[in-house]
Amino acid sequence: MSSYDTHALHKIMHPKSIAFWGASNNSMAMGSVQLSNLLLMNFEGPVYPIHPKHQMIQGLQAYSRVSEVPGPVDLAVLVLPTHVVPEVLEDCGKFGIDRAIIVSAGFGEQDGAHGKELQQQIVDIANKYSIRFVGPNCIGVVNPSHRLNTTFFPYEATPGFIGMASQSGSFITQMFVHLAKFGLGYSEGFSLGNEAMTDLTDCIEYLAESPETRVIALYIEGIRRGRDFVRVASRVSRKKPIVAFYIGGSESGGRAGMSHTGAMAGPDALYDGIFKQSGIIRARSIEELFDFCYVLGSQPLPKGDNVAILTHSGGPGAAAADAAERGGLKLASFSSETLTKLQALVPGTASVKNPVDLTFSKNYSDYMASMPEILLSDSNVDSLFIYCLMPHQRVIQAVVGAGIGKDQAGSFANQYITTQSAIASQFAAKFGKPVVGGTYCDRSELFVRELQDNGMPVLASPERAVTAMGALAKYAEWRRNHEAD
Amino acid sequence: MSSYDTHALHKIMHPKSIAFWGASNNSMAMGSVQLSNLLLMNFEGPVYPIHPKHQMIQGLQAYSRVSEVPGPVDLAVLVLPTHVVPEVLEDCGKFGIDRAIIVSAGFGEQDGAHGKELQQQIVDIANKYSIRFVGPNCIGVVNPSHRLNTTFFPYEATPGFIGMASQSGSFITQMFVHLAKFGLGYSEGFSLGNEAMTDLTDCIEYLAESPETRVIALYIEGIRRGRDFVRVASRVSRKKPIVAFYIGGSESGGRAGMSHTGAMAGPDALYDGIFKQSGIIRARSIEELFDFCYVLGSQPLPKGDNVAILTHSGGPGAAAADAAERGGLKLASFSSETLTKLQALVPGTASVKNPVDLTFSKNYSDYMASMPEILLSDSNVDSLFIYCLMPHQRVIQAVVGAGIGKDQAGSFANQYITTQSAIASQFAAKFGKPVVGGTYCDRSELFVRELQDNGMPVLASPERAVTAMGALAKYAEWRRNHEAD
Repeated sequence: MSSYDTHALHKIMHPKSIAFWGASNNSMAMGSVQLSNLLLMNFEGPVYPIHPKHQMIQGLQAYSRVSEVPGPVDLAVLVLPTHVVPEVLEDCGKFGIDRAIIVSAGFGEQDGAHGKELQQQIVDIANKYSIRFVGPNCIGVVNPSHRLNTTFFPYEATPGFIGMASQSGSFITQMFVHLAKFGLGYSEGFSLGNEAMTDLTDCIEYLAESPETRVIALYIEGIRRGRDFVRVASRVSRKKPIVAFYIGGSESGGRAGMSHTGAMAGPDALYDGIFKQSGIIRARSIEELFDFCYVLGSQPLPKGDNVAILTHSGGPGAAAADAAERGGLKLASFSSETLTKLQALVPGTASVKNPVDLTFSKNYSDYMASMPEILLSDSNVDSLFIYCLMPHQRVIQAVVGAGIGKDQAGSFANQYITTQSAIASQFAAKFGKPVVGGTYCDRSELFVRELQDNGMPVLASPERAVTAMGALAKYAEWRRNHEAD
Repeated sequence: MSSYDTHALHKIMHPKSIAFWGASNNSMAMGSVQLSNLLLMNFEGPVYPIHPKHQMIQGLQAYSRVSEVPGPVDLAVLVLPTHVVPEVLEDCGKFGIDRAIIVSAGFGEQDGAHGKELQQQIVDIANKYSIRFVGPNCIGVVNPSHRLNTTFFPYEATPGFIGMASQSGSFITQMFVHLAKFGLGYSEGFSLGNEAMTDLTDCIEYLAESPETRVIALYIEGIRRGRDFVRVASRVSRKKPIVAFYIGGSESGGRAGMSHTGAMAGPDALYDGIFKQSGIIRARSIEELFDFCYVLGSQPLPKGDNVAILTHSGGPGAAAADAAERGGLKLASFSSETLTKLQALVPGTASVKNPVDLTFSKNYSDYMASMPEILLSDSNVDSLFIYCLMPHQRVIQAVVGAGIGKDQAGSFANQYITTQSAIASQFAAKFGKPVVGGTYCDRSELFVRELQDNGMPVLASPERAVTAMGALAKYAEWRRNHEAD
């Protein structure tokens, strides 16, 4: 067994059976929605709804007490009124359940002493029975490859490579649709709530060992164990990138976080220092968090800061160049050999200086194959940005213009786009250098969809793509500086 | 006639007839694509392709010389090899055409003297015949309500309220798909290219009078007539907001711009000063440019910086609060009357402090109607942000849960969402305060589509929405400070 299988959180993410409190036949109740999403996910083990009255819930046999459940239970999920939680947790302990997710709110995040006392009470019960729980005041976890989703949104993304620990449940669940915009998904995702027993640091430790997790995303309103956090994070980020979005640094963000999960925020500069010391890359918005994860989780580390920008449109190329410098990158100066080779492929009005601008007179095959190959072969180039625009309709026009019948043009165009995308997507691995795309289109364009599904990150604008490449270069530099440690 | 109708650019945007050079029966040639987009747009006047050999082009009667055209021509569009342009422009002048768009490149943007001489030559010809042209090295103009689109992308957005002048053609054409993500569109859009006769300042002057244009967007690589620019912009921005994305301030951005349109960039701080002096709001990316235009062009000016944040999800609310402070806004402190009224509508675990967090136990009707009304009635609140999430599937579940048959649930849900959206969209006008939404979903959600189509701006994240509200508040402050001027 690896340290992953034996980690206390592993069983929460890989239960073989689940007992579920708080689902009923009222389909709008929070617990009912959560149970229905678990079933929608086709969770493979037995699920035992516990309910004082109902005998059947959502087609499942229900039980009035956990002691009546006919088999072992790996995980308890509690979506119950606050005051009932201690008693049920006690039942779980007596029955031998040692993992739980406590969704119920009304604990330490509340003003006044009562909620905090209640929270201490459930921690004491958990300790008495050696129960490890996530929450309270959370929305549970998601592990798509284990078909596990205890949250109240259906998991609509694909299984992915982003492992997330979040002090906001919404930034797990409401991101399913955001990640799907890029064909991305979670490997494993924790909503932590009040972190009474399981906090960000525990999750970083666990996700570091998670085999599907290639990058760790954090949403932070306040860190509870600063010293442990730095110790664990700075060890983990030596082998796996960590990206964090921290909102507590502004007074308004801090206050909002406080009433949300009771987390105590600190000054922005303090957190900046913690992140720098730990090798954590900081994002300034949720979009940026996932942009950075997309690139850091999918691309090789660049050897330096010199980026090549390839475009066929001046404005997007110039915007990418501007974002490169603001993001800490330099525009690479090409070797004379590179310039000569490029010159042969571009029209007279085009620019072979960086940004390389093929202009309208574009030959897509050069653009997505020969030119990236020339640029990546240049030792002055550490990474490559490609502006990605190949409207399906335009390719069909071209195919028709080349004499293919209209009935066949669609499938010819599809095949062409698919082939070009597959070629372009191989360059990062072939050259061991990051290759990132940016577009103002989205996955409704076949070209974008194919590139993304072939593993080339294509972000929602050139500026965002290049900014994420800057984050990757910063992380690579941190890794270089800490290799010997 | 207003100063709009008599402005020299008016006829370029409202031609009754067009002569078109450079389209052929080669459907992939740039000119052919541009002509086809004009025809796709159902331009209402006659279009005369001019071609030395073809007699029919894209189903239109073609003419070998402009002198053979049977009617008057309001606008010439030239998509020709560089060296032919002077001669054809001379022909236009002789034939009495006094407006032109010169798409051809190879002029002042080129290294060396030759291109610059050629550019001077066409300016001289234009002056000789009193021709006013846009370009060269541009991609033309778009005026959807006049069914005019001379660019090489089909205009797929709706007619909108953003008037744009851009030193990049791509940031006109390739934005059609970006604007469509929000149900937005251009009122009128200029690609300016090398600005030999028509520059940003001219367009600001013109767009100031354009009745459909509620906000002016600029993409700038370098300003050619600084003093005139400031004079015109600071006058115009007293009545219509102007938003600019300037990329020349970084060395890399400046270099890229130089080889793109020959525009000479200046230091970032200089341009910052120009923008501040002129009341122009500066954006840092293309997404931000259009985010700002979306809010500045659709919302009333707030009286102050105090924003109320309404959410049912803690994380998005906290992220909005954080972005508010970073964007120069303050979280409003509510009156005790407001707090009492809100208290009656939210569950015990929810927060009525700003951000107001209804939590999961949401009643959508309170959320989109009663609560905005309470918040906007508070004189401490200058503007309102609403986090927008109402999954269609979830509403259907609710309707089914309420006992409506599954066959009718879809249409009940549609009607509910449509009604709620209509109510929420009226608040900005009713209270004379900005009301802006933010979501991580997109227009594939009926709720988002309905809000946007009813006139409430819904941006692509809470952070982006609140950042745009900060830009609006900055502009409102500038207006207050310059009212007496």
